[in-house]
Amino acid sequence: MARIVEVTELLLREAQQSLLKTSMALDDVIPVFEDLDNAGYWSLECWGGTAFHSSIRFLNEDPWERLRTYRKLLPKTRLQMLLRGQNLVAHRNFDDSIVSRFVEKAALNGIDVFRIGDALNDVRNLKASVDAVKKAGKHAQGAICYSPSPVDTIVAFVDLAQQIKELGCDSICVQDVDGLLKPQAAYDLVKGIKQNCGSDTLVSVHTHSTTGVTMVSLMKAIEAGCDIVDTAISSLALGRGHNPTESLVAMLEGTGYESRLDVERLHRVKQHIAKVRPRYREFLNQPLGVEPEIFQHQIPAALMLNMEYQMKGQSTPHLLDEVAEEIQHVRRDAGYPALAIPASEILGTQAMLNVLQGKYSVITSEFADLMLGYYGTAPGEKQPEVVDKAANRQNKAAITCRPADLLEPSWERRRTEALALGSNGSDEDVLTYAMFPNAAARFFQTRTAASKDTPKPSQETHGVTGPALSRAASGEAMPAESRTYIVKVSGEEHNVTVTPAQ
Amino acid sequence: MARIVEVTELLLREAQQSLLKTSMALDDVIPVFEDLDNAGYWSLECWGGTAFHSSIRFLNEDPWERLRTYRKLLPKTRLQMLLRGQNLVAHRNFDDSIVSRFVEKAALNGIDVFRIGDALNDVRNLKASVDAVKKAGKHAQGAICYSPSPVDTIVAFVDLAQQIKELGCDSICVQDVDGLLKPQAAYDLVKGIKQNCGSDTLVSVHTHSTTGVTMVSLMKAIEAGCDIVDTAISSLALGRGHNPTESLVAMLEGTGYESRLDVERLHRVKQHIAKVRPRYREFLNQPLGVEPEIFQHQIPAALMLNMEYQMKGQSTPHLLDEVAEEIQHVRRDAGYPALAIPASEILGTQAMLNVLQGKYSVITSEFADLMLGYYGTAPGEKQPEVVDKAANRQNKAAITCRPADLLEPSWERRRTEALALGSNGSDEDVLTYAMFPNAAARFFQTRTAASKDTPKPSQETHGVTGPALSRAASGEAMPAESRTYIVKVSGEEHNVTVTPAQ
Repeated sequence: MARIVEVTELLLREAQQSLLKTSMALDDVIPVFEDLDNAGYWSLECWGGTAFHSSIRFLNEDPWERLRTYRKLLPKTRLQMLLRGQNLVAHRNFDDSIVSRFVEKAALNGIDVFRIGDALNDVRNLKASVDAVKKAGKHAQGAICYSPSPVDTIVAFVDLAQQIKELGCDSICVQDVDGLLKPQAAYDLVKGIKQNCGSDTLVSVHTHSTTGVTMVSLMKAIEAGCDIVDTAISSLALGRGHNPTESLVAMLEGTGYESRLDVERLHRVKQHIAKVRPRYREFLNQPLGVEPEIFQHQIPAALMLNMEYQMKGQSTPHLLDEVAEEIQHVRRDAGYPALAIPASEILGTQAMLNVLQGKYSVITSEFADLMLGYYGTAPGEKQPEVVDKAANRQNKAAITCRPADLLEPSWERRRTEALALGSNGSDEDVLTYAMFPNAAARFFQTRTAASKDTPKPSQETHGVTGPALSRAASGEAMPAESRTYIVKVSGEEHNVTVTPAQ
Repeated sequence: MARIVEVTELLLREAQQSLLKTSMALDDVIPVFEDLDNAGYWSLECWGGTAFHSSIRFLNEDPWERLRTYRKLLPKTRLQMLLRGQNLVAHRNFDDSIVSRFVEKAALNGIDVFRIGDALNDVRNLKASVDAVKKAGKHAQGAICYSPSPVDTIVAFVDLAQQIKELGCDSICVQDVDGLLKPQAAYDLVKGIKQNCGSDTLVSVHTHSTTGVTMVSLMKAIEAGCDIVDTAISSLALGRGHNPTESLVAMLEGTGYESRLDVERLHRVKQHIAKVRPRYREFLNQPLGVEPEIFQHQIPAALMLNMEYQMKGQSTPHLLDEVAEEIQHVRRDAGYPALAIPASEILGTQAMLNVLQGKYSVITSEFADLMLGYYGTAPGEKQPEVVDKAANRQNKAAITCRPADLLEPSWERRRTEALALGSNGSDEDVLTYAMFPNAAARFFQTRTAASKDTPKPSQETHGVTGPALSRAASGEAMPAESRTYIVKVSGEEHNVTVTPAQ
């Protein structure tokens, strides 16, 4: 008897984000729902992450409404979402009153499986959401953000898995957002988790095909006991996206493992998506093929591309290698946070400033907060001198408590604000407003208009965000001694005025 | 101590054929020669196969001269070629006087490793070339053409490997031209060969990335003891091409296996090829991504595409599925020859005729010859009724001897003919003429002109050939009872007049 390997299909959300940098129109995916719902998937990942923001900002579409549509049209299969721990679907910490309500409403609207991760791998940032998921009677999957470093060893990750399990999670996900998970590491990590947390601990592996090796990593993870793997239907796979679902099915043939998937249904899904994909051609702004050179610096492909773009904008493309090198130093100084959003963007922007302006002569407020523990605790030791500089910059001390413990309950305030801005009075609207106040305020005014079913590309940071460093929009020449930049982190703009250190 | 896995780089020949359907200009590849020659490859595959024909037909370039250039500029690394057994670099049998001279001259001009395969896996078709390679003191690698069927089991392939070894081959290649080699089959096959032929028997695995699973197959083959794998530099890899070299290096990290390759040199090669590749954009006429659906029918991707094109030309695109199905029947009737050139084309054309004209009411002369043993012996039993029809069609009997035994030594005759057509008097020119008489005759007249260093695409079957079935060029309407088609097999045209059976 072959052992069953379960599959989470990423077509409905992350595959779109990774390859198209937008969400596909509902009309383009509805025709495959019957096949998806009957193909035998363990779950369909379809909500959360950057898609929430895209919905209100670019599609003029209520993300909660889309979720209800998924639930109605996909009645048989588990629906899964990506939740960034205390950040929910945004990039800053929320207080627990928001976290618990967000999870409760997501569960009520249709989510069965919550994949919960934190870029700093600080389990305290997962706890409130895991508790809320358990309270709602749903599946809590705790994620390890996989980003190797001198302190992020297999042993450290296995220990982290144990902590995640102790939170009460129903499964553990090894989440590799850049295709950095090599085959042997995949094997060792899954094996370690199974040995340490118990062989009945469900383990899921999420990886990207970016580097060309992770299909092999899935095989090795399965050999080590991995229960669930993430893939995307082949016509929306590969590149910086994911490994192809149908290839996974074929890969297992004769191995003693097998999926439950119905190949004919998969093939119909593939064909339909291949047919509609050209509508999103203008969004495809990434190289095809593989980027194994990422192993040399471990910088996420999207961040590297963004850096390149920014450095060209600064007329300093020749400094790109220096910035890539500097990211390693800044990461070390910050105690090796994972190179995942938002830490990757924060480190990237700081590395650029270090190269362009001198080492830590300018510090962004986000980087300062990261150094001072306001995002959580990083896995390694921080460089004390840089912590001191950050404390001076922000005029506040480093913290060691869970960051959200400093936040006042904000539900009632946000509820009042949302109503004043034209929300429809639902709790879901309050949550939308809490996530993205500016975009939500605009959305509340425009929601009655039809949703834009063929989104137009935007010059703005869109979907997968990155730091956007550019001259002040005014275009005025600034005095040589002092320059003002607009630094965009996760879509939020900050004016940064730079004066060279004496 | 990690075990070394050796690598054959396909960039210089097969990767170009698979992805660009042409040969790159020498000037575009020479800049990477120093890195290629010092990167630590076991061999550089660079000659033979379809490239020979392309050279004289499309590039106005002497393939022997290109080989000498490779040898001169790549002094350190083994140069490897693909030789189709008794067919050499064409698609029909040659007598042994031609075979032995071709090998001798290829060795003298620079080839170190001869990969020798036959689409029917008839080892008698390998013998003359293997003997010639050994006589020249070079490395003879016998290839198993991997194309699973009810009679082509792992046991049968292992037995074939033993026969190949007994010919005196220095190594055995598992050659999978369509990405059909699944991981477990790769493991079982390599393990079987090692157990049966001795663990010191060098085994090489060649596969394509077409179906998205074969990177895993390479890993499993290596675990089973495979010594050499074929890959292509990542900027000319994937799709219907090959797995990326740099990803292979990364894949092995920490596994107990490692390559000798220098990652920095590989990265420079990648970057240069990525830079020049856009010059060949117009040649890229295949879908990107993966085609795991090939597992359902096992029809080579290139053949399927060609079929589709032909069926549209016949205004019968709706019959494509029927033709794909019919190929399976025709293959069975022919004793399961591998779906590799030339058998794949012969079966494809016959299947189209069967669907369009009625089952075997029209038989091409190539198909008849295949049925009658004139290409060699197929692995399975042939359908006797179809053999009888073929015998009637050709008015000759089936044979069981080695086909080349029926051929008169032709060296002297071809030498005289080549001289009369303007050859330069060299043995190499005679061989070029022997391979492709018409193209060579034209080439002898035009060779003094500069080589076309940026080849132009052609509507003709080009590089990777397939059957081209089209209405007679005259365009005249034929009487309904009788039609004439030009059937092109491997670039050679045949008039086929079709009269429905009574």
